[in-house]
Amino acid sequence: MNYPSKMHKSKNNVTYFGNRGMDFEEEINITNSFYLQNDIAVIYKKPTPITINTVDYKSRRDAVITKAHFKTPSTTDYNGVYKGKYIDFEAKETKLNYFPLANIHSHQIEHLRKIEQHGGIGFILVYFKTKNKVFYLPSNKLFEFIENSKRKSIPLEYFEHNGFLIEPKYNPRIDYISVIDYLIKE
Amino acid sequence: MNYPSKMHKSKNNVTYFGNRGMDFEEEINITNSFYLQNDIAVIYKKPTPITINTVDYKSRRDAVITKAHFKTPSTTDYNGVYKGKYIDFEAKETKLNYFPLANIHSHQIEHLRKIEQHGGIGFILVYFKTKNKVFYLPSNKLFEFIENSKRKSIPLEYFEHNGFLIEPKYNPRIDYISVIDYLIKE
Repeated sequence: MNYPSKMHKSKNNVTYFGNRGMDFEEEINITNSFYLQNDIAVIYKKPTPITINTVDYKSRRDAVITKAHFKTPSTTDYNGVYKGKYIDFEAKETKLNYFPLANIHSHQIEHLRKIEQHGGIGFILVYFKTKNKVFYLPSNKLFEFIENSKRKSIPLEYFEHNGFLIEPKYNPRIDYISVIDYLIKE
Repeated sequence: MNYPSKMHKSKNNVTYFGNRGMDFEEEINITNSFYLQNDIAVIYKKPTPITINTVDYKSRRDAVITKAHFKTPSTTDYNGVYKGKYIDFEAKETKLNYFPLANIHSHQIEHLRKIEQHGGIGFILVYFKTKNKVFYLPSNKLFEFIENSKRKSIPLEYFEHNGFLIEPKYNPRIDYISVIDYLIKE
């Protein structure tokens, strides 16, 4: 798969993150804010799913949750709209030279399948920390790997051949919409 | 605005909720499960947004949140995909014969504006408890009311004339997709 030319343009830009590694989730949130403020797309991170056990209603204005548990997410973390289309993705980082599939819950993969089935645009963004590289992998390429391989992790090479390299820029930081644009036009 | 004929068909059905009133949020969740299981649409309620202050990591498997606060939502409660299109809505109930606009946060109205601007399908579902009636009001009709009226609540008649009555059925309970279908075909 060839990379859209746009993906390479940022090569001469000064990247925001030196070799120190970035807070990937934070960078995506900043990217989404940029898209929102510049009327490009409306994409949000969903709140962390929890089960609330006890709430202390000290006052109407200040209810305090005093006991709650984390729930396993049944969907991905990010979704929203771009040019009327439904966008849905999960973002993960790894310090390894491969991406362990255990990093994505099976419910989330199942969810991405449903999204594809209903005509949405689904993908994963993976940040290879030690390489300082971010890849966009379309969900159909994720499914292809799972169906054709018995390996429990996806090697970096698979991302290089089947995904899209997103080089971090100043603004938008992680410009995944440029990949969507390329895929829509294809 | 005329109602789609489909909206009237359920009149002869035995409705699930007698006069006792329903748990509206629960009925919408059941509706969404029905859509998911029958491969009609993928729509989820977002988790309640909270700020987590302290977490007790007793064991790796059982982290307990011991202090957290509710956050004001910046988006609506429900979103997802139907036939590739982005769907976004807020569901509210009222015991009154009008719908107080204070029931929707200004951020949520602003969010629905953004959704419309980006080609998504946005609306509100309002359950008039004492009338046992559910209305689908397209977001553009919500904006129209806000722009043309100084009233702080939307009268039931406005919903009757500008919205769509959804009569509760057994399955799907609150069939809002039938309204979307009608609007897409229009």
